[in-house]
Amino acid sequence: MSVAFSMRETGSSEDDLQAVESMGRAARAAADVLATATTDTKNRALAAMAGALRDGRDRILEVNAEDLHRAATARRPAAFLDRLKLTAGRIEAVAQGLEAIAELPDPVGAVIADWKRPNGLRIARVRVPLGVIGIIYESRPNVTADAGALCLKAGNAAILRCGSDSLETSLEIVTCLHAGLAAAGLPEAAIQLVPTADRAAVGMMLKGLGGTIDVIVPRGGRSLVERVQNEARVPVFGHLEGICHVYVHEAADPEMARAVTVNAKMRRTGICGAAETLLIDRSILDSHGAAIIDALIAEGCEVRGDDAVRGVDRRVLPASDTDWGTEFLDAVIAVRAVGGVEEAMEHIARYGSQHTEAIITDDEAVAARFLREVDSAIVLHNASTQFADGGEFGMGAEIGIATGRLHARGPVGLEQLTTFKYVVRGSGQTRP
Amino acid sequence: MSVAFSMRETGSSEDDLQAVESMGRAARAAADVLATATTDTKNRALAAMAGALRDGRDRILEVNAEDLHRAATARRPAAFLDRLKLTAGRIEAVAQGLEAIAELPDPVGAVIADWKRPNGLRIARVRVPLGVIGIIYESRPNVTADAGALCLKAGNAAILRCGSDSLETSLEIVTCLHAGLAAAGLPEAAIQLVPTADRAAVGMMLKGLGGTIDVIVPRGGRSLVERVQNEARVPVFGHLEGICHVYVHEAADPEMARAVTVNAKMRRTGICGAAETLLIDRSILDSHGAAIIDALIAEGCEVRGDDAVRGVDRRVLPASDTDWGTEFLDAVIAVRAVGGVEEAMEHIARYGSQHTEAIITDDEAVAARFLREVDSAIVLHNASTQFADGGEFGMGAEIGIATGRLHARGPVGLEQLTTFKYVVRGSGQTRP
Repeated sequence: MSVAFSMRETGSSEDDLQAVESMGRAARAAADVLATATTDTKNRALAAMAGALRDGRDRILEVNAEDLHRAATARRPAAFLDRLKLTAGRIEAVAQGLEAIAELPDPVGAVIADWKRPNGLRIARVRVPLGVIGIIYESRPNVTADAGALCLKAGNAAILRCGSDSLETSLEIVTCLHAGLAAAGLPEAAIQLVPTADRAAVGMMLKGLGGTIDVIVPRGGRSLVERVQNEARVPVFGHLEGICHVYVHEAADPEMARAVTVNAKMRRTGICGAAETLLIDRSILDSHGAAIIDALIAEGCEVRGDDAVRGVDRRVLPASDTDWGTEFLDAVIAVRAVGGVEEAMEHIARYGSQHTEAIITDDEAVAARFLREVDSAIVLHNASTQFADGGEFGMGAEIGIATGRLHARGPVGLEQLTTFKYVVRGSGQTRP
Repeated sequence: MSVAFSMRETGSSEDDLQAVESMGRAARAAADVLATATTDTKNRALAAMAGALRDGRDRILEVNAEDLHRAATARRPAAFLDRLKLTAGRIEAVAQGLEAIAELPDPVGAVIADWKRPNGLRIARVRVPLGVIGIIYESRPNVTADAGALCLKAGNAAILRCGSDSLETSLEIVTCLHAGLAAAGLPEAAIQLVPTADRAAVGMMLKGLGGTIDVIVPRGGRSLVERVQNEARVPVFGHLEGICHVYVHEAADPEMARAVTVNAKMRRTGICGAAETLLIDRSILDSHGAAIIDALIAEGCEVRGDDAVRGVDRRVLPASDTDWGTEFLDAVIAVRAVGGVEEAMEHIARYGSQHTEAIITDDEAVAARFLREVDSAIVLHNASTQFADGGEFGMGAEIGIATGRLHARGPVGLEQLTTFKYVVRGSGQTRP
């Protein structure tokens, strides 16, 4: 572990890891308080957090400049440094994000369903918080506030583990969050930040901190993904990869196919809903395909194709076998010609990550089949994969996109951070 | 492993375990077929299964008699042998159970929610099957048919692992289920039974059979519970224990308190929704408490109480510390006097298993607090804990009760055996 990764000077790593172990118990106790906190109390905390962030702006920027300096010295790439960097404007945006979460409806206590039984029992399915949520993320300080606030609004305690390069900035932000919690009379342990850059802490969280963590939300790169796959002993809401496909069927409108594909790939290439592979019916390679490829290249996208695709545009580079199933997260796309919807769906089943796939076609029957049979969290007809986003779905805010099958699938917003219980009201009923 | 546990004479245990490993891949392939099977196809399979069970009745009874003989020789207790035993009547009941599942609405394809976005995108949350479900259960041959059928109706492939004493009977039943699947053109791998009594197979299932099992449903005693806790690497729908509480508040109607408590404990003592502990306000021990204890003892229940409780009836035995938090599953109840709802909820939080708890009171405010603050899958006001049952909830049939917090909580019926995906329909929308 290089010195750039561990900047705290107080205490040994072993002390820090013992502190992590005790965070689980503190979080569980805080979760019990949060579970019955009123909407008003939670919203007051969020508003006070926003205020504290604004008041603490200068100190945050100062500490962030130090984090940035160390990260630059450690030769982090420019995109990494940009995500780590805060400005006055970005801090204001974070504060406004907290205020926006306060405005969202409180999911806790909402009645999802209710019905009456012939014996007079009234049964209601009522939303309750999940409990303790562990979030492991990269060096993006804004996530510290966003994720903590979303967990709080849904009545959950959060244990946050930020990327090590952003530790000092995140600690400063958490100080502001704690001020907000205190102002509303809520326990500080409702939002805790792992105070060490020691990667052993991630392993401890993935094992559940002695049964105290109910779910882990990972947000990060390949090395984290592999650790989660190998080590997680608690449920995970998250996606390992977003290998999203656009399939242009032979009955697609050419102009729509071009616009949607370019948007799906190029609007933002670094998000998980960005298209990574284009599948296109062989029969329309010359008509639709050439125009789509031309538009992608005009936008600065590198196009890698199979032989058929290379035949329509000599600027297309040869695709290798590993290009199918690669999450480029960059201005690169793999393009393959297919013999129809069946072959497209087979390709998606084989190489996809069950995240988001789109079909472009004017044939309603083919679209219905694709939407029904493709086993992904989100399937779209005639729309860009970049809509794979909680905000775009109308959920207000999201903590990530889940590709697992249980509990949360697709955007993970406030409702997905809750569970439910059955509340049964009777008048002395006994079971015969 | 005693000879009574492994009766199959073909192949070594190692061969059998290799067969188990390959069941995961076969189940996954079958799940792909089931995911798009029509309701009609699934219902035809269920009807044909019922017919095959009736046709195979004599053969099933013959094999069951052999299983019973071996279990009796191995000195299994009478209640165990009763659960293992099939009769013509019980086989008919199993067949009718399959027909009842065919009558239930198909959860797959149901639209849970749909909405339209300002940009014109129509978003629907649509139920889809979970995938591959592993079920580990005791020597109750009827579960083989019930569990397999419920999984099938929800579009899932099932890998069943029955108690070893019922293996030959269950294999015979699965032969009938396969005949039903074949009659409807569905793959036999939709319902597979682990063909070995080797307990290593349970460990393999708990590890997920190479990522092919999506969820495990355990139904069994303490030894299975401990294995699940220690070894499960896939999500689990189930309860470890059902330590259910009845709390009689001082504002309870005395007659209702008596009737509900006796029903909660004594209607059937062996089910997970049976009450194990009675908490009663100290102020009404003499008025309500004495009558409840008298009624329990009159019904043949052993009552173990703290000193205060023993003061009102000299037949009450002293409760030990381990009685709180014990799932007796028998005509035994632990009774404790408490100082009010707060102390009752503290006791439940400390000793309960988050399964089912009831409050008896005419005070609506106290009831509301109990229903809101007690963190159990099912909370009841003025009704018996024995209503903790999918059938009683109106779900038609259940595979068990879940006390975990994620995905399924409370009765696990057809809907809980599904997940969902987002289906988005557009007209060429791109994201700005």
